[in-house]
Amino acid sequence: MAGYNLEGIEAAPLKDDVDIVIPTIRSLDFLEQWRPFLQHYHLIIVQDGDPSIKIKVPEGYDYELYNRNDINRILGPRANCISYKDGGCRCFGFMVSKKKYIYTIDDDCFVAKDPSGKEINVIAQHIKNLETPSTPHYFNTLYDPFREGTDFVRGYPFSLREGVQTAISHGLWLNIPDYDAPTQLVKPRERNTRYVDAVMTIPKGVLYPMCGMNLAFNRELVGPAMYFGLMGEGQPISRYDDMWAGWAAKVVCDQLGFGVKTGMPYLWHSKASNPFVNLKKEHKGLHWQEDMVPFFQNLRLSKESDTAAKCYMEISKMTKEKLTKVDPYFEKLADAMVTWIEAWEELNPPVKNEASEELNPPVKKTQSDGEDVKAKG
Amino acid sequence: MAGYNLEGIEAAPLKDDVDIVIPTIRSLDFLEQWRPFLQHYHLIIVQDGDPSIKIKVPEGYDYELYNRNDINRILGPRANCISYKDGGCRCFGFMVSKKKYIYTIDDDCFVAKDPSGKEINVIAQHIKNLETPSTPHYFNTLYDPFREGTDFVRGYPFSLREGVQTAISHGLWLNIPDYDAPTQLVKPRERNTRYVDAVMTIPKGVLYPMCGMNLAFNRELVGPAMYFGLMGEGQPISRYDDMWAGWAAKVVCDQLGFGVKTGMPYLWHSKASNPFVNLKKEHKGLHWQEDMVPFFQNLRLSKESDTAAKCYMEISKMTKEKLTKVDPYFEKLADAMVTWIEAWEELNPPVKNEASEELNPPVKKTQSDGEDVKAKG
Repeated sequence: MAGYNLEGIEAAPLKDDVDIVIPTIRSLDFLEQWRPFLQHYHLIIVQDGDPSIKIKVPEGYDYELYNRNDINRILGPRANCISYKDGGCRCFGFMVSKKKYIYTIDDDCFVAKDPSGKEINVIAQHIKNLETPSTPHYFNTLYDPFREGTDFVRGYPFSLREGVQTAISHGLWLNIPDYDAPTQLVKPRERNTRYVDAVMTIPKGVLYPMCGMNLAFNRELVGPAMYFGLMGEGQPISRYDDMWAGWAAKVVCDQLGFGVKTGMPYLWHSKASNPFVNLKKEHKGLHWQEDMVPFFQNLRLSKESDTAAKCYMEISKMTKEKLTKVDPYFEKLADAMVTWIEAWEELNPPVKNEASEELNPPVKKTQSDGEDVKAKG
Repeated sequence: MAGYNLEGIEAAPLKDDVDIVIPTIRSLDFLEQWRPFLQHYHLIIVQDGDPSIKIKVPEGYDYELYNRNDINRILGPRANCISYKDGGCRCFGFMVSKKKYIYTIDDDCFVAKDPSGKEINVIAQHIKNLETPSTPHYFNTLYDPFREGTDFVRGYPFSLREGVQTAISHGLWLNIPDYDAPTQLVKPRERNTRYVDAVMTIPKGVLYPMCGMNLAFNRELVGPAMYFGLMGEGQPISRYDDMWAGWAAKVVCDQLGFGVKTGMPYLWHSKASNPFVNLKKEHKGLHWQEDMVPFFQNLRLSKESDTAAKCYMEISKMTKEKLTKVDPYFEKLADAMVTWIEAWEELNPPVKNEASEELNPPVKKTQSDGEDVKAKG
């Protein structure tokens, strides 16, 4: 490990700096199994669908819960940027959090075991990934050089060994792999049984499909770029919420000089969603991704975009310019992206920053009352 | 596995299509342990150092052996492009081979075991890597999608799922990691015990440090780019032979649309070289890599460079232009690169290719006599 001491990171690392965001439509019994690892953390539950349904949360968990009525009350007309009847509603939780790190997990995911039979502490691994640097400028063939027992190999320039700050840690899944509907249909029985003992940086300039099932990020660095789009009821597309966020956030990380890691930790994904339902939800996305991916691959942001929010506003503008010809939906999405940033900035007024102050007049600070925006758990 | 059936690939796959190239200064007792996996393949042994030393090869192996006298006789004045007293002399073996694939291995490497205790068939894994496509345009989070039990994940554009032809398979090492001298000195006892059960594509536009210890490639696609430079006796630098080849070959693969994979197979690297000796050999390289890596990162080849040899000639020209200011050595290296290509083309006269014929008049074919250039094993 190249110079990092993470011994202090144990069972519930940085518990005051992490919120766990869970989108759900049902009672959260899955949290019973997670107690040893997640019970010390604060939960932000985003209830999707019918607000009159009562979500049960296992005793002993500290949480706040938001249903659609809460979202409408807190955001007012801007609530239309938050997806309904789609897991993408989770990004509302990112917005109301005040913590440095977010960990978001799906409610059909359970604790996995490593090959030695030991239960995997997902959050401890995500924190390790986020608290150690990334190496996006050059590939290290022994993978994460900041991990104990490894380092940079011969031929790795010393000037690049400091790495860059990590903004995103993308975890993986044993059992049910995250396949699209066509692949699910073709391979209904394929299960992921391969535990790959590695974490690696996705290099600069390279895109990847970010899955929201087991995902952690530094919201101070890239929170505004973690918008899960307009999906679900009333929209022509679903199941691309995390993909949209992943592509945009990667471009933003590349622009701002932050790193993105993928690999460990694994969790156990228990339930394959219905491939026929998924096909209906996805079919436009399967088509549109042939344009969306090249769009993000070719995006070049201006030097002026030096914060995640400014980058995101520029991406919104380019979405409207370049993707509306694919489908009018993208014009609506681009507008929702602006609404998202406005809502984000209202709930998270920009902190005075001496470096950026020289270039930009300080933004007028409007104090948002943390108590006021939170429903009681 | 996305549509590839590799069942036929077993103990000695494609044995008539692979040459094994071994640079050495001593008897090849290490091959005893490799019999189950390598004995069915033809060896090309490049004897470095004193030609009067007799290299013993274990019985039953089919081989040809070249010492410095052979190299001088075969290449004449062009022999000066082949390093002396440096493992980089192995590239002479790439040049005299007539096979599709090369596997090159160091003589201090042994058979490793996977976590189940099974001995790893390095060559079978390299052939799998080379015979299945690479995916350099977008990262697949479950790693090699062409491997049994896995596929492309949700959000992977269908237009990219065919992949591209693989040109290079870079294998790794258990036990002694491939560290530079400063890292060896700081961590004399660090051993690589981590078996990462994965093969992945190095994305387009991304460089990596290629180690020659356990390396396979398709010489028809990239042979001319696999020049291990001018290192060792009479040169100011050593231990950067494989790095130079790796950087150049990656740029060539990116230009020609071929893929590069890294990861499995592992072998067992038994002997750490002396870090003080290495420091002396490496010290200029440790410094120059700060210029060499950005040089290759920023290299843009012209459209006219549509074969590995043409790409390599262009890289030679740019090496002279851009790196001579770092040290006059690079002018000598650039000239040696040209000599290497001339020698390569003499021993491997270009095959008539209808596609390129339209752009370039056919090269006059001069038949080289295979028997004549080979010393007898």
